[in-house]
Amino acid sequence: MSELSVNHLLGIKYLKKQDLDLIFDTAAHFKEVINRPIKKVPSLRDVTIANIFFENSTRTKLSFELAQKRLSADVISFSAAQSSVKKGETLIDTVNNILSMKVDMVVMRHSHAGAAHFLAKNVNATIINAGDGAHEHPTQALLDSFTIKEKLGEVAGKKIVIVGDILHSRVALSNIFALKMQGAEVKVCGPKTLIPKHIESLGVTVEPNLAKALHWCDVANVLRVQNERLDVNYFPSTREYAQQYGITSELLETLNKEIVIMHPGPINRGVELTSEVADSSHSVILEQVENGVAVRMAVIYLLASKLK
Amino acid sequence: MSELSVNHLLGIKYLKKQDLDLIFDTAAHFKEVINRPIKKVPSLRDVTIANIFFENSTRTKLSFELAQKRLSADVISFSAAQSSVKKGETLIDTVNNILSMKVDMVVMRHSHAGAAHFLAKNVNATIINAGDGAHEHPTQALLDSFTIKEKLGEVAGKKIVIVGDILHSRVALSNIFALKMQGAEVKVCGPKTLIPKHIESLGVTVEPNLAKALHWCDVANVLRVQNERLDVNYFPSTREYAQQYGITSELLETLNKEIVIMHPGPINRGVELTSEVADSSHSVILEQVENGVAVRMAVIYLLASKLK
Amino acid sequence: MSELSVNHLLGIKYLKKQDLDLIFDTAAHFKEVINRPIKKVPSLRDVTIANIFFENSTRTKLSFELAQKRLSADVISFSAAQSSVKKGETLIDTVNNILSMKVDMVVMRHSHAGAAHFLAKNVNATIINAGDGAHEHPTQALLDSFTIKEKLGEVAGKKIVIVGDILHSRVALSNIFALKMQGAEVKVCGPKTLIPKHIESLGVTVEPNLAKALHWCDVANVLRVQNERLDVNYFPSTREYAQQYGITSELLETLNKEIVIMHPGPINRGVELTSEVADSSHSVILEQVENGVAVRMAVIYLLASKLK
Repeated sequence: MSELSVNHLLGIKYLKKQDLDLIFDTAAHFKEVINRPIKKVPSLRDVTIANIFFENSTRTKLSFELAQKRLSADVISFSAAQSSVKKGETLIDTVNNILSMKVDMVVMRHSHAGAAHFLAKNVNATIINAGDGAHEHPTQALLDSFTIKEKLGEVAGKKIVIVGDILHSRVALSNIFALKMQGAEVKVCGPKTLIPKHIESLGVTVEPNLAKALHWCDVANVLRVQNERLDVNYFPSTREYAQQYGITSELLETLNKEIVIMHPGPINRGVELTSEVADSSHSVILEQVENGVAVRMAVIYLLASKLK
Repeated sequence: MSELSVNHLLGIKYLKKQDLDLIFDTAAHFKEVINRPIKKVPSLRDVTIANIFFENSTRTKLSFELAQKRLSADVISFSAAQSSVKKGETLIDTVNNILSMKVDMVVMRHSHAGAAHFLAKNVNATIINAGDGAHEHPTQALLDSFTIKEKLGEVAGKKIVIVGDILHSRVALSNIFALKMQGAEVKVCGPKTLIPKHIESLGVTVEPNLAKALHWCDVANVLRVQNERLDVNYFPSTREYAQQYGITSELLETLNKEIVIMHPGPINRGVELTSEVADSSHSVILEQVENGVAVRMAVIYLLASKLK
Repeated sequence: MSELSVNHLLGIKYLKKQDLDLIFDTAAHFKEVINRPIKKVPSLRDVTIANIFFENSTRTKLSFELAQKRLSADVISFSAAQSSVKKGETLIDTVNNILSMKVDMVVMRHSHAGAAHFLAKNVNATIINAGDGAHEHPTQALLDSFTIKEKLGEVAGKKIVIVGDILHSRVALSNIFALKMQGAEVKVCGPKTLIPKHIESLGVTVEPNLAKALHWCDVANVLRVQNERLDVNYFPSTREYAQQYGITSELLETLNKEIVIMHPGPINRGVELTSEVADSSHSVILEQVENGVAVRMAVIYLLASKLK
């Protein structure tokens, strides 16, 4: 297969396994490019991309912008705080206005689940979802799978546990879709109040005990925990959370095997992970960031080639 | 004529009819450019432009930035919120500092009427007014006239009504200057408290009744209305405003002719225009946005050619 | 000498006299470049630079960005207000994340003295200090010395007085290091509460009286004064400060010689300097800004050549 089966990247749910393979092959090529002295290719000189972030995100926005620059695309960016959205303009009006300036592709982050999907139905441009509410964050799941492939050779048959606040996490949901599609076994582990009911319907199992989950897995993908989402009866502070769900070197030493530690960032050092773990050879957190640029280059490149 | 009669674009008031013709001819060329696959020309590789926005404006700023990128100019942008202006620096000091970094052209939006004019007198750079208080917004009027020409063949002899808050609108004032200069007939229509006294001295007439105004006109240029500027005795909310001055499909159907509906954006859907009208074939609102990039490319290109 | 003795620009304190000479020679070349019609050189097409500003600074950030663009580097910029730093991420995590996106050089401003130094020790990239707390602001001192050289031929043997809030000023400290290294005589002049104790250990002398200081000097480098840092018992407002430490034309006329007036900006007109002095032929304030771009191009270019 030499092109994607979709015209937008709205979620992993809408992709096929072959799409993932094509994205990973293309990303492997771009990873070589960005490790050369001249990190740019002239591929997208004829494509204009707008990054529209209705929620703040330093790292995702920088990663997309760098990916676009390295493909030589024309880039315009804006965040909601500076926008007409404040004046009460509708999402479609805002985006149609930008498209009228001859923009080919929109990368959007929005707090409402389904915003990217809604946009793809209603405007005439390629849409890339950079996170919509608690729904999907497909490029994060793609870079996570690409990183697992890089470390372990393949995703199929591997055992992956996602640890933390599964309920509010678009990273978790997109990862579950991507990992299951590639034939991985997936467990989730976290406080009862942060695990969605009926999560088993997605083909994953719940393991409430962190030590057991880590003994079982090849990879632990650890999510950021936000204080205000913890049930105060069980977790009056992140300290109590860390005691039950934080990964420490001591815990890793009990495993008698090497596991891979992933985290989408930004890390709460001393909460989800101790600093020792975050900075250890188990951790591939910075590889994830590097791979993020390559994977986003691949997605943008492949979707742009469908414009022509 | 192959060059502009002015060295700055401070307002339509300072232009001649031939300047408008030259800008429109040049914009028509650039509109072809931005509809090609490669939307860039290398014309201004030797020009550095600073966009200085003391008032927020997503769409005007993006439009100028895209116009500049497509001319291959070097661009730096900043908004007042992040600037030394907060530390009490004077406008001239701020701009002179930026010019000392070898900037050739300044695009400025400022809340004070006359700010662009003051700057042009006091600093050594080409100034483009991107809106100064309730005074002028010349590129908006140029793109509006360009759009009318495109739809109706010419502006001379056409009947245009400007609807809404004329009193606080730089868009209205610049449009009146541009339209009268080209030989159009112009009426204004809006609540009494939002029509400037002595507006007739500009050669326009006042028509308080919206239905009559629409029956008369070829084009209705509809301004955004801000709640806080309405007289609460007559208009306790925008709902009452919409009943008297909002354009609906029902109203348009009574006209027995096609009129062109324009709006500088962002639209208050359901206030100045119903959604049905905004999205109808009457509306050229998105064409205005597209033409904005072409017209701004033309203005920047023509002013830059006077630098050489 | 054809390369710098350092791999980072953390402070003037870590440079040798030959480093300064090399930077000034290179800056003189780049000053010619930015005064040509095409102000760009393709030198750093293979270098990606991140500007990370944890404190706001319009002029320093614009100056660095322009310097980078004119060297054809790839540039990404962000300020702390929009960043993960708000989410409690550590400085090293933030910077390592950015570096994982294949960034070669980081220009950083931070409110903590020593932040740039700490970063250089802990991450794998070239660091340029754009101001760290009350510690150093090395590119400002370099552009100040470059400007003195340009006006007076050389710095060695010249008499320079730094006027104002010496205690909180990284500009003062970096200037003292740079001027002494080049063999200038340096005095500081300002309110007693704003002069650091033991300042004489740096080889400078204190002159509390402004008129005497100006009679003595060839150059007065005048710092911005912030109201909230003045001792209210002596200076209830900036008016009292201006009476004692503000430079006026009347005062300059009593000198019977020409002195050079410098200021890092933004100026409090009527406080440190009257408007008449700021805009007089004594003042080289705008030359400083212009030289800032050339000096920053030189520093970036010389450090980048050590990457290869």
